[in-house]
Amino acid sequence: MRDVMVIGIGQTPVAEHWDKSLRHLAADAVLAAMRDADVDRADALYVGNMLSGEIAGQEHLGALIADFCGLRGIEAFKIEAACASGAAAVRMGYMAVAGGLANVVIAMGVEKMTDETGATVTSGLALAADGDYELPHGLSFVAINALLMQRYMYEYRVAREAFGHFAVIAHQNAMNNPNARFHVPLTLERFASSPMIAAPIGLMDSSPIADGAAAIVMCPAEFGRAHYRNGGPSVRISGSAVATDCLSLHDRRELLRLQAVEHSARKAYAQAGVGPEDIDFFEYHDAFTIMAALSLEGCGFAAPGTGTHLAREGALALDGRLPVATMGGLKGRGHPVGATGVYQVIEAVQQLRGQAGANQLPRARLGMAQNIGGSGATVVTHILEATE
Amino acid sequence: MRDVMVIGIGQTPVAEHWDKSLRHLAADAVLAAMRDADVDRADALYVGNMLSGEIAGQEHLGALIADFCGLRGIEAFKIEAACASGAAAVRMGYMAVAGGLANVVIAMGVEKMTDETGATVTSGLALAADGDYELPHGLSFVAINALLMQRYMYEYRVAREAFGHFAVIAHQNAMNNPNARFHVPLTLERFASSPMIAAPIGLMDSSPIADGAAAIVMCPAEFGRAHYRNGGPSVRISGSAVATDCLSLHDRRELLRLQAVEHSARKAYAQAGVGPEDIDFFEYHDAFTIMAALSLEGCGFAAPGTGTHLAREGALALDGRLPVATMGGLKGRGHPVGATGVYQVIEAVQQLRGQAGANQLPRARLGMAQNIGGSGATVVTHILEATE
Repeated sequence: MRDVMVIGIGQTPVAEHWDKSLRHLAADAVLAAMRDADVDRADALYVGNMLSGEIAGQEHLGALIADFCGLRGIEAFKIEAACASGAAAVRMGYMAVAGGLANVVIAMGVEKMTDETGATVTSGLALAADGDYELPHGLSFVAINALLMQRYMYEYRVAREAFGHFAVIAHQNAMNNPNARFHVPLTLERFASSPMIAAPIGLMDSSPIADGAAAIVMCPAEFGRAHYRNGGPSVRISGSAVATDCLSLHDRRELLRLQAVEHSARKAYAQAGVGPEDIDFFEYHDAFTIMAALSLEGCGFAAPGTGTHLAREGALALDGRLPVATMGGLKGRGHPVGATGVYQVIEAVQQLRGQAGANQLPRARLGMAQNIGGSGATVVTHILEATE
Repeated sequence: MRDVMVIGIGQTPVAEHWDKSLRHLAADAVLAAMRDADVDRADALYVGNMLSGEIAGQEHLGALIADFCGLRGIEAFKIEAACASGAAAVRMGYMAVAGGLANVVIAMGVEKMTDETGATVTSGLALAADGDYELPHGLSFVAINALLMQRYMYEYRVAREAFGHFAVIAHQNAMNNPNARFHVPLTLERFASSPMIAAPIGLMDSSPIADGAAAIVMCPAEFGRAHYRNGGPSVRISGSAVATDCLSLHDRRELLRLQAVEHSARKAYAQAGVGPEDIDFFEYHDAFTIMAALSLEGCGFAAPGTGTHLAREGALALDGRLPVATMGGLKGRGHPVGATGVYQVIEAVQQLRGQAGANQLPRARLGMAQNIGGSGATVVTHILEATE
């Protein structure tokens, strides 16, 4: 297998893009990534997207977006793995380059959600859960996460308010990210008083839906090193791993330990030859604050039941020992579902290149990005490394 | 890159499966393929599917199907490329094995379409076309193909009746395929008198929607040769290629030459080191009879405008020089859209192994399967070879 580098990144602001169609949004990100990489062609394009059929009235995004970006003819598919679709596309691109089937590959994610009503989006997101065994009980996707959070609070005797720190950090970090959906600070008081969505999940536990597109350009390391001109260190993908679990909560081995998070992280660590103690920062999947806690615990950054302690102690802040959601995470930057996994990888690259602006970490050699689909049923973990 | 073998095949009958959910249908195919390959595990599962979100109320099929097949935990995604989704999943599996990222990979396709009304299915299939520039004109997917057929008849002075031969061959070959949707012979007279759907496309030009699932198991050749026990020659994938084009007809370079068919076939030939004259049989994408003609022409089996001649002269029959749709094709076996590309590969494997029953070709060393998404916007071509 060949070493794979990320040589280009491009993203649109995460926002309500009333003025742009899905293909325009996608092209904005792809063309920006190609400019950043200084390439004018690619061998393949893999598009992460979950709901274009249900919400945007368009399937067949691979060929559509390739053509619209001036790449007519190249290999192109859409990849779907619920909220992990973005990182799944990155994984496919990694596979193509690492395996020697393609040299220059674009992996991108796009989702356009705000054109539709909340009810349609809620129904769409529910398709990530088990349609035969969960949805008939009236469970929305938020409600499924609420069951997890309820159980977590009960088992580990954690108060609702303890989760507030995750949201506060996310909003804080989003303040300096021009592409973030929110630029408003959040206090623990406002977190505590925010309206309840599906008890115990409140509005401020929840990441916002949004429109957005993000793209990266990947290539073999030899080509990348010869070609790369962006200044700062170049970025290598040193771990790429996927694990799955059953969709439905009732079938899980242990409700509060996300097996797929654990397996995916373990495989990525093994490939990169590192452990959790070596990771300088973590772009985690804080779709809901409970997912932030479970992701931290499953990846070995905290013992089961202690994820919120890390947040409370300041370890997750930009100046802490494991900064998370450094550009705002899903809560602050926003969660255009099929694009999120690519935003995470891009933000890791920004940190590793030293291009994270006011949020630049002093030490950023090894970053991890973890994208979670469903309530832990598909988990894609990438470890990225700055190299000279 | 490693040589890739197909060591297991499994399929459900193409039919109206009122008694089985989508996951059951998928598992029937996957478990049959695993039994055939004599494996009890896999490293990854790639699921081709187009419309599960719109019609079956379920996304996130990768993790869902992996779990339901007893493969909980493995890497699994859904791949979408309209009607080419099935072969796209095969392509992904090929990539993983050829590139050395996985050893035992299952590629499968599943589609469950008959639970919904025709109107819903028609709307769903239209998502393969350009939602901004084609659908607003009221074009259904059949209508788009009808425009192509109309133009073809005009440019090349071909009568409607000339397309009947494609349908007659398909129905003839489906007679002996127990998994085919239709077991009724078709005559040219009945073709000519069948009701018009979207002029000049009649009912008998059109492949039927259906429910169905098909799966293959792939592995590196060394493992396959050591492990393979199914009798008959083993089957190697000697060419795997994808090409795309714009979705919308009005943007095509030449309306009657499908660029993606040509590019995809050319790449597959080059990889396999063969030409059209070396292909013993062709599992083509006869979603509509016009696609059969354009696919034959784009792949170099017939000069532009002469595809129907091949059919009329008997060249495409089982005893002709280029048998097509040997188990019934999309018209006779049926077209469960996201599964079709995998059915095509399976049927090629059946021929190459000598397991095609009454339809067994006397000479079947090199077979080609071509899966077309949209009206030629994504084309995936595989060349399969019998080896000792």
